[in-house]
Amino acid sequence: MTENRGQRTEDATALLAAIRFNTDGLIPAISQDANTGEVLMMAWMNRQAVEDTLRTGYAHYYSRSRQRQWKKGESSGHVQQVRSIHLDCDGDTLLLKIEQTGAACHTMRRSCFYRQWRNDGWQVTEEPLHAA
Amino acid sequence: MTENRGQRTEDATALLAAIRFNTDGLIPAISQDANTGEVLMMAWMNRQAVEDTLRTGYAHYYSRSRQRQWKKGESSGHVQQVRSIHLDCDGDTLLLKIEQTGAACHTMRRSCFYRQWRNDGWQVTEEPLHAA
Repeated sequence: MTENRGQRTEDATALLAAIRFNTDGLIPAISQDANTGEVLMMAWMNRQAVEDTLRTGYAHYYSRSRQRQWKKGESSGHVQQVRSIHLDCDGDTLLLKIEQTGAACHTMRRSCFYRQWRNDGWQVTEEPLHAA
Repeated sequence: MTENRGQRTEDATALLAAIRFNTDGLIPAISQDANTGEVLMMAWMNRQAVEDTLRTGYAHYYSRSRQRQWKKGESSGHVQQVRSIHLDCDGDTLLLKIEQTGAACHTMRRSCFYRQWRNDGWQVTEEPLHAA
């Protein structure tokens, strides 16, 4: 157990070493449905959120408005189980392939990107999921 | 022609009205392969880049390091033809579904997200495309 903990800490250090956080100590993280490829949302992570995501296997983010780190779905139950973590060439954007429980969006839609530009206006392309 | 130009300007105004640029006047834009669903890159747009993307049908971004707006692929030829433009719930992230010519990444890889975390290190999961 102690060894596992040590290993995990070492892993997190290696993972974090390649990440270039911005001047606010944050990095954008895109979440993509691991099964369908649908892009679900983009949110920000601080160092702790990255560590907690790695440690628990569930996506954690940093809320800039609430100024705190949070587990996605901690109140709604709409958690994101992480299948894989990817980093871009500049080390300043993360891509998480995840299994989404329920809605990724706070509007109860599967994806936050439910508006599409259609010639002369933003059209809503996705309806909210029905409450269970 | 004049009418078309007027219409385009009006369209851009409506499109831009829903977008919440950050305090630097920028918005992150995720580009996704319209055919495969692969997430290719994340870059930033300023107001002009959004307008030029809408006007030309090709992705334009704003380079924070060079402090100027640019057409993706203007020197490499690796342009991104935009199929659709999507906006998230908060209006602060764009998703572009695009047709990518060649490599999206400056390392000549199809996607910028070519590193994947595998237990104890970042593994390169994609090789550069061969030069034509």
